[in-house]
Amino acid sequence: MNFNELLEKLKKLDYKDLYHNDFFLTWDKTQKELEAIFTVADTLRYLRENNISPKIFDSGLGISLFRDNSTRTRFSFASACNMLGLEIQDLDEGKSQIAHGETVKETSNMISFMADVIGIRDDMYIGKGHTYQKAVAEYVEEGFKDGVLEQRPTVVNLQCDIDHPTQAMADTLHLIHEFGGIENLKGKKVAMTWAYSPSYGKPLSVPQGIIGLLTRFGMDVVLAHPEGYEVMPEVEEIARKNAEQYGGKFTKTNDMAEAFKDADIVYPKSWAPFAAMEERTNLYGEGKFDEINVLEKKLLAQNAEHKDWACTEEMMKLTKDGKALYLHCLPADITGVSCETGEVDATVFDRYRVPLYKEASYKPYIIAAMIFMQKVKNPEETLQKLVDKNKARLER
Amino acid sequence: MNFNELLEKLKKLDYKDLYHNDFFLTWDKTQKELEAIFTVADTLRYLRENNISPKIFDSGLGISLFRDNSTRTRFSFASACNMLGLEIQDLDEGKSQIAHGETVKETSNMISFMADVIGIRDDMYIGKGHTYQKAVAEYVEEGFKDGVLEQRPTVVNLQCDIDHPTQAMADTLHLIHEFGGIENLKGKKVAMTWAYSPSYGKPLSVPQGIIGLLTRFGMDVVLAHPEGYEVMPEVEEIARKNAEQYGGKFTKTNDMAEAFKDADIVYPKSWAPFAAMEERTNLYGEGKFDEINVLEKKLLAQNAEHKDWACTEEMMKLTKDGKALYLHCLPADITGVSCETGEVDATVFDRYRVPLYKEASYKPYIIAAMIFMQKVKNPEETLQKLVDKNKARLER
Amino acid sequence: MNFNELLEKLKKLDYKDLYHNDFFLTWDKTQKELEAIFTVADTLRYLRENNISPKIFDSGLGISLFRDNSTRTRFSFASACNMLGLEIQDLDEGKSQIAHGETVKETSNMISFMADVIGIRDDMYIGKGHTYQKAVAEYVEEGFKDGVLEQRPTVVNLQCDIDHPTQAMADTLHLIHEFGGIENLKGKKVAMTWAYSPSYGKPLSVPQGIIGLLTRFGMDVVLAHPEGYEVMPEVEEIARKNAEQYGGKFTKTNDMAEAFKDADIVYPKSWAPFAAMEERTNLYGEGKFDEINVLEKKLLAQNAEHKDWACTEEMMKLTKDGKALYLHCLPADITGVSCETGEVDATVFDRYRVPLYKEASYKPYIIAAMIFMQKVKNPEETLQKLVDKNKARLER
Repeated sequence: MNFNELLEKLKKLDYKDLYHNDFFLTWDKTQKELEAIFTVADTLRYLRENNISPKIFDSGLGISLFRDNSTRTRFSFASACNMLGLEIQDLDEGKSQIAHGETVKETSNMISFMADVIGIRDDMYIGKGHTYQKAVAEYVEEGFKDGVLEQRPTVVNLQCDIDHPTQAMADTLHLIHEFGGIENLKGKKVAMTWAYSPSYGKPLSVPQGIIGLLTRFGMDVVLAHPEGYEVMPEVEEIARKNAEQYGGKFTKTNDMAEAFKDADIVYPKSWAPFAAMEERTNLYGEGKFDEINVLEKKLLAQNAEHKDWACTEEMMKLTKDGKALYLHCLPADITGVSCETGEVDATVFDRYRVPLYKEASYKPYIIAAMIFMQKVKNPEETLQKLVDKNKARLER
Repeated sequence: MNFNELLEKLKKLDYKDLYHNDFFLTWDKTQKELEAIFTVADTLRYLRENNISPKIFDSGLGISLFRDNSTRTRFSFASACNMLGLEIQDLDEGKSQIAHGETVKETSNMISFMADVIGIRDDMYIGKGHTYQKAVAEYVEEGFKDGVLEQRPTVVNLQCDIDHPTQAMADTLHLIHEFGGIENLKGKKVAMTWAYSPSYGKPLSVPQGIIGLLTRFGMDVVLAHPEGYEVMPEVEEIARKNAEQYGGKFTKTNDMAEAFKDADIVYPKSWAPFAAMEERTNLYGEGKFDEINVLEKKLLAQNAEHKDWACTEEMMKLTKDGKALYLHCLPADITGVSCETGEVDATVFDRYRVPLYKEASYKPYIIAAMIFMQKVKNPEETLQKLVDKNKARLER
Repeated sequence: MNFNELLEKLKKLDYKDLYHNDFFLTWDKTQKELEAIFTVADTLRYLRENNISPKIFDSGLGISLFRDNSTRTRFSFASACNMLGLEIQDLDEGKSQIAHGETVKETSNMISFMADVIGIRDDMYIGKGHTYQKAVAEYVEEGFKDGVLEQRPTVVNLQCDIDHPTQAMADTLHLIHEFGGIENLKGKKVAMTWAYSPSYGKPLSVPQGIIGLLTRFGMDVVLAHPEGYEVMPEVEEIARKNAEQYGGKFTKTNDMAEAFKDADIVYPKSWAPFAAMEERTNLYGEGKFDEINVLEKKLLAQNAEHKDWACTEEMMKLTKDGKALYLHCLPADITGVSCETGEVDATVFDRYRVPLYKEASYKPYIIAAMIFMQKVKNPEETLQKLVDKNKARLER
C-alpha cells in the first residue's frame, strides 16, 4: 500500500485510547487499535524506505529497562526510539528482583524526568514481570499527576511473564504481508508447538503471546506440546474466548504431527513448563538456589525425553502442500548447527531464513508504532505533515 | 514566572564569567552567577513544559566520567545533555584511582575531540575528586590552546570530595519554589544534620555543599552531628564567612533536637566522618586493603552507637509548627522499609514523597543551565531565539 | 585550505567506488580514493571549526562492534557518527570468537534494521579479524538484496588482524599537514620500528598498516625489528609492490639505529611476532589455555632481551637534524612514567606531546569521511549544500 492508502485505512479506525496509554498485553486492546498499530508500523516503514524522516521528537529519552541481556530486543527498541528522535538510556538493574515498591516507585520517577517512553523486558519470573510493568506505569502516572514529571512516560512491554506483544505483533504483521492482508488470515491453520531444545527455562511469553493474538483473526490455532508443558491457564482461557468471539478455533493436542497436519503456518519453539517456572519463582523468592539447580537439572532431563519434538523435513511434509510458513522469534536451536539436537532441521531453517529475517524486521516498526500512537494526539495529521515536510532522513 | 519575567530577571544579572568556564564549587561563583543559573534552569523548564525545544546543539558529545555507579546522577546528566542536543558517551574508569597525570592528560584530550562538556563524579577519596576535576579542566584547556581540540569542553562537577553543586543547587531551587522566591529564604532556619544509616562511607559532599551554599542566602544554618562526624574544616570556614558576609548564621551542635528545634527546613542524612575518610584515602593509596576492611567495620560500629539520630515523627514535632520541609538527596535509608533502622521514619518520608521527588526533578535543569551558560555567549538572545522559533519538542 | 579549495581538489578526484562500499584495507583502495577521504576529512574539520553543522543523517544508528575494550577507538567512532547525525549502539560480543557463520549472519542482520554503518574492531587473532569483517559485510549485503534490510549498512574497519586503516590514515593526514601537502611526503624517510614494551601481544596491524600505506607516497619506508618479530609476509609483499609502483623504497633491517639514521619520521612501537600470534590463534582455537599462558611468558621473556630497542634521546639524535617527527598510535609505554622501561624516553615523548595529540585528533574526521563517502552519492553537492545552509552546530 502507498502512503495515501495507509492513511485512508487509518482514518477508518478508532484508536484514540492508545493515546497517553501503556501497552502491556495485546488482549487489553481492541481489534481496531491493533489494526491501527499495524497500519502505522507500515506507514513508518514506508517513510523510512522513501528516505522521509519519521522524527517526531526533537529531544527526549527512551529508557530501556531490561532484567537480562538481550541484543535483539535492545536493538529493536533502540531502533524504534532513534527513528522517532528519542535517545536511548539503558537502566540495567541486573537479574535480581527488585525487593519492594518503595524502590520501584522512586527509581521510576528518578529516571523519568525527561523520559517519553520506558521499554521494559522482565520475563524471568512467573507472576512478576507484568506486575512490575504495571507498577512502573502506575508510579509514573502518579508522578505526572503530582507535578513531579513534566510528561507522562508511557510503558511498552518488551516481554513479560505473560505476553510478548511486540514479538507477536511483529509475527502477525509478517503474516499479513505474506498472506496479502489481515482478512486472508481467516481460516488459516497455525500450529504453535513446543520443540525440543537442550537449554532450559525459555520463557512462555512467546507461545502465550501467539495464542492470545492469532485467535483474534479467525484462525485455526492449535497449541501442541508434550504433557507437562502447559502454558498459563488464564492465557489459554483468553485464546478460547477470542476464538469464540472472532469466529476461529483454539484447540490443544499432545501430538506434534496432529498440529502440523495441513497447517498453513508452524511455530515450533521450546519453552519451559508453566508449573516448573512457577516453582522456580517460588524457590527464587525463598532464596533456595540449590533447589533451583536441582529443578533445572530435572527440567533438562524432562526436555530430553522429547527430542522427537522437532521441526524436521518429515514433519514439514505433513503441512499444507508441505510448504507451511515456518515462524520463529530467533535465535532458533538448529540441529547440527547451534546444537546437536534442536528445534529445527538445518535444511528447514535454511529454506526459511529470508522470511525469518523479514519477520524480525517488523519489530522495530511495531515498537515505533506503539510509541507513536502513545505520544501523538493526531496521528493522521502528524503523518501527513511528515510526508509534506519531506525532510530527508539521509542527505544523500 | 513566565518567560518574559524570567528573561527580564536574567538581564539584570552579571554572569558573563560563567561563559567558557568550569563549574567546580558553588563558592567559586558570585551571587549573581548562581542566580543566573537558577533563572536559566527555570527558563529551560518553562520551555520544556511548553513543548518548545531548548536544543542549542545540532551535534556534539556530553562525556560522563564516573568513578562509581550512579543511576540518578547519570540520568540527570543524560537528561540535561539530551535536552540541549548533546549525545552522551560514558567513560567508566572503574573505581580505581588513576595513577598519574600523564594518563589523565592523555585521556582527557582523547575523549574530547568532539566533547562540549565533561561531567565528572569522583567523590570516593578525600583530597582526590576536586583535584582530579581541576586537572581534567586544565588539560583540556591546554589541548584547546595547543590546537589539539577544536572546542574547549567545560567541566561540570557532578559530585566531588568537597562539594556537590548540582545537588545543592537543585535543593536550593526547590526551596526557592517552595518558599516563593530566593528573598524569602532569609532568616529561615535549616538543620543540616547527620542521621544514622547501616551503610558505610557515604560522601561528605552533600552536607558540605549545603552549608557552603545555603549560608549565602541569609539563612540560619545549623550543622548537627555526633562527635567524631566532623566535615572538612575548610568548608566549615567557608560557611562561617558566608554567614558573615550575607547576614545569616552558621552554628554547630552535637544535639540533633537542638538543630530541629523550630527549623523551617531539615536535611537529615548520613555521612562518614571526615577524619576516617582521610584515613581511608591514605590506606587506599598505600594499598592496605585489609586495614580498609578493619576501618570499615570500626566505622559501622561507631555509626551503630548513634541510632537515635533519626528523623522520627517525634523529632519532626520539634520543628516549626511541626511542619518543617524535609529534604533529602535520595535514596534515603527508611526505617522498616529499606533497612531495619535508618535515617527517617517511613511515615515522615511518605508524607514528603512528592516534594522530595520534585526536589530531585530540578537537577537535570540545574545541570542543563550550567552547560547552557558555559557554552552560550549571549544567553538572553539565544533564549529569546528559542522561544521565537517555537520548534516543537514533540510533534504531537 | 579553505572550503572552496578543498572542494575544487575533491572535484578532480575519481572516488565513485567508495559509495555504497566497505572500507577494509587501504590497499583495496585507489590513490584517488584515499586522497578523496583525506580531502573530505579536512572539509568536515573545516565545517566543524567554523561551527557549520556537518550533519547528513536526521536519524540512524552507527553500530560499534568491538571484540575488546577500547576507549580511544570507541570515542573516535562515536565522535564521527555523532558529527554526521548517527546515534551509537554498542554491541559488545566479549572477547570470545564467534563460533560459526550462522550466528554471525543472523546477528549481522538483527542489529542492522536501522544501521547505516557498522564499525568493527577485531584484532586479537591472526586470520580472524579481517575474515570476520568481510563476513559481516557479505551477510548484510545479502540481507539488503533479499529485502530484509531497508538500507545496506557499510562496514568500517576500526582495526583488524591485517590493517588498521583509520589509524594509518589519521597518521598520514597528520604527516600531510606537518609537511605541508601529500606531495611533500615524497622521498621522506620513515622508520617504522619495533620498540620494547613490558606488555604482551600488541597487535601487528599498526606496523602493517603503516608499511602498507606510507609506501604509496614515494616515501623511503624502513621496517626495523629484532629477529623473530616479523610481520605478516603478505603485507610486506604489498609494501614492496607499492614502493615499486609509486617510486618509493621499502627496506628491512634488524638494526634500530640504521632505521633511525637520517629519518624524517620515526614510529617506534611494540608488537608481537607474527609467528607467535599465529601459534596463539591456533592454541586458542584448540582451547589450549595453559599452553597460551606458557607462550605468553615465553614472549615476555623474549621481549625482555630487546630492552635496548627504545626511542631514547640518543636514538633521536641519529635522525634528520636530530628532529625527526615522532609518531605513535597511543598510548605509549613511556620509560619511568607508565612503566620502568618502555618504548620511549619521557623527555622525547614530552617534546612531541602536542603533535601526538594532533595526530590522534584526525581519527574521528577520517572515520567520518569514510562514512560520508560510503553513504553520500554526491559528496561535492552535499558538502556545498551544508555550507550554503550554514546551520550552526552550536547556537552560541
